[in-house]
Amino acid sequence: MKISTLSIGDELICGQLTDTNAGTIASLLLAEGLRIQRHLAVGDNEPDIIGALADLERVSDAIIVTGGLGPTADDLTSRAAARATGRRLVINEEARNHVCLMSGKLENLIFCPLSDKQAMLPTKSALIPNPGGTASGFHLMHNGCFMFFMPGVPSEMVVMLRDTVIPFILERVVQKRVIRTESLNLFGPCEAEVDELLLGIARPEQGLTLGICVTFPWMKVTLRVEADNLDTATDLLLPAVRTVRERLKEYCFSSGGISMDDALAELFRERCLTLSLAESCSGGLIAKRITDIPGSSLYFCEGAVTYSNAAKTKLLGVPAELLNNSGAVSMECASAMARGIRHSSGSDLGLAVTGIAGPDGGSEDKPIGTVFISLAAPDGCWTKRFQFSGSRDEVRIMTAWTALDWLRRYLLSREQRV
Amino acid sequence: MKISTLSIGDELICGQLTDTNAGTIASLLLAEGLRIQRHLAVGDNEPDIIGALADLERVSDAIIVTGGLGPTADDLTSRAAARATGRRLVINEEARNHVCLMSGKLENLIFCPLSDKQAMLPTKSALIPNPGGTASGFHLMHNGCFMFFMPGVPSEMVVMLRDTVIPFILERVVQKRVIRTESLNLFGPCEAEVDELLLGIARPEQGLTLGICVTFPWMKVTLRVEADNLDTATDLLLPAVRTVRERLKEYCFSSGGISMDDALAELFRERCLTLSLAESCSGGLIAKRITDIPGSSLYFCEGAVTYSNAAKTKLLGVPAELLNNSGAVSMECASAMARGIRHSSGSDLGLAVTGIAGPDGGSEDKPIGTVFISLAAPDGCWTKRFQFSGSRDEVRIMTAWTALDWLRRYLLSREQRV
Repeated sequence: MKISTLSIGDELICGQLTDTNAGTIASLLLAEGLRIQRHLAVGDNEPDIIGALADLERVSDAIIVTGGLGPTADDLTSRAAARATGRRLVINEEARNHVCLMSGKLENLIFCPLSDKQAMLPTKSALIPNPGGTASGFHLMHNGCFMFFMPGVPSEMVVMLRDTVIPFILERVVQKRVIRTESLNLFGPCEAEVDELLLGIARPEQGLTLGICVTFPWMKVTLRVEADNLDTATDLLLPAVRTVRERLKEYCFSSGGISMDDALAELFRERCLTLSLAESCSGGLIAKRITDIPGSSLYFCEGAVTYSNAAKTKLLGVPAELLNNSGAVSMECASAMARGIRHSSGSDLGLAVTGIAGPDGGSEDKPIGTVFISLAAPDGCWTKRFQFSGSRDEVRIMTAWTALDWLRRYLLSREQRV
Repeated sequence: MKISTLSIGDELICGQLTDTNAGTIASLLLAEGLRIQRHLAVGDNEPDIIGALADLERVSDAIIVTGGLGPTADDLTSRAAARATGRRLVINEEARNHVCLMSGKLENLIFCPLSDKQAMLPTKSALIPNPGGTASGFHLMHNGCFMFFMPGVPSEMVVMLRDTVIPFILERVVQKRVIRTESLNLFGPCEAEVDELLLGIARPEQGLTLGICVTFPWMKVTLRVEADNLDTATDLLLPAVRTVRERLKEYCFSSGGISMDDALAELFRERCLTLSLAESCSGGLIAKRITDIPGSSLYFCEGAVTYSNAAKTKLLGVPAELLNNSGAVSMECASAMARGIRHSSGSDLGLAVTGIAGPDGGSEDKPIGTVFISLAAPDGCWTKRFQFSGSRDEVRIMTAWTALDWLRRYLLSREQRV
């Protein structure tokens, strides 16, 4: 079944609001083995809505429309739907009762001026109940294409989609193809390198495809299989996932929706080690990400954001002489910071970063993007120099990701203490 | 001029990635008085891309396409563009040199296997330079419709749009209606309150409209005027902006694209005061936001992320007795933390937060979302209790926003030192 989505709203095509409904619908349908073919968005404008419905109808068996069912004058979807399908707009008593009920006006059925608009539906349409708001949805069939109309409010839309639209579609899908996906998240290599590593895994002729999605600074590799039944799908997918894992090795930090921060938190809990941080150029970003995770107080002791030299000396015990001789952005300083915070906090691990995030402060020796990261641990202290590129934000983000990934790899290399 | 956008990528129509490019393009064009008519998204699939280009071409004077120009096998846009416009794909030397240059392979022009794909463009297309990545963009004209193709990476796309695509379109636009917008950013009130404050300002019959866009936890009020000429537009817009400013008062923290963090940084520079932070439940988030701003080392001295009680005592001098009697989440502790960090750092201002971000740790007295914020300044020390709602993330975000807004209001109340 070919399914399209249509989002209606001026705010969507003016860039004032990001359209999240399209993605939500796509992922809920995908979980049922249904795929969106195309997604279209137009403004609150009758000719555009009619044109969009006509275009999509030609290429789709079903269209899922959101938006433009509100009570105000700029909500035009019902009228456009009636025009596009050659129907009249009539009062739908069921929809009217619903508006009145939701407006808490049940005792006053005679005069509900606002509600009338939301009760006007194209003839021969069936209601899509909306337990969360005044706007009823509706669906109808035109030229062999099912059209579903729902309000744009995400929380209302999701319930209507789940309870009415998806079951309706599933009942009518003959010979449903099974779709299964599995995704792995990685940090470190560039896209071309991953492409090369994964060469020959996809088997499009058998329905097994592979996609790489880059979301700076990490990547998601998604394996997708489409087959006649679950067994075939699983038989194709599992060995492929195993091969991908083997080839990506430690680049892969998690699978599915598990973030780097989640994965690292899990390792800290398993390894029973504590951490303190000394941050200069990352300015608290690493501490923020560590403490984003509930329960991080179990392993995170303290963080020092030592922006000034004075703070580095006072809080971390970095000798003033070292700062004078080697500078605050140096191998020596990073290492002293890591050892300093480890010592003063009494944590198992001390991690420190110092660098030049820009846009100013670079030199020939140490251009913008130069970052030193140091890890002090019970079994040693290591310091590495990195050269990142991009804006101040990008340098800081790369610094935090690289530091967190280093912690992850360090913890992985340690025996699990049970 | 009728303009459409087309986003290409399986991850977009599978719901794995939210398409932000469409919104970015729409708002950048709107700022130039250009409006997007419709937005379409399809997967990495040649027939769908060709079909989408054909559909959009019928209703558009220009199509702005993003995505699918990467080096990997699932990037199909160039080939589909060639097919859709009846052209051949040929090596474009300029694009090829660019790929090699960006890959740091200039000395090895003979063998760049990966780069060839990104250098294959439809015949008779002009390059859209991409200073940020290997994928060159290109544009061509087909059946009277301009088609622009750019990579999907937002940071690369924005530069190419701004530097090449928008100037190209503006040169060809005849009889442009003047659109002017002005937006004000606010923090504090709820949407209904803002709605009431701004009653009667919009004059849609004269082309002056007003929109409120809520982006948790702040809001943007956008005034938009569409008129025949710049004078009429300005005459309508300026008094309306003034009225909005007067009614919103100190809720309004900035205008246009200036963030809360930018606005606060500007005030710190003007007031010549220094700041140190002591963060418990916000875990470095406030320090991160302060140091997001280039040059923040001028006024930001140090931050202490004191997650444990021991750290609060050691780094901030909070008496162990106080922690035992009042608890770490208390008026007394917040105040001691603010005074402690102000004293130990020697900064003009010390700001401290302590609270319960959840999901665990709440009690009847101090439910999840209880946060104490304290500001220690030369002229006094104030502590306030807040009750935020929502998830751990939301509580932390509200904590940081509230603290930064408090700093902003405090600095505003101080005389400017020149």
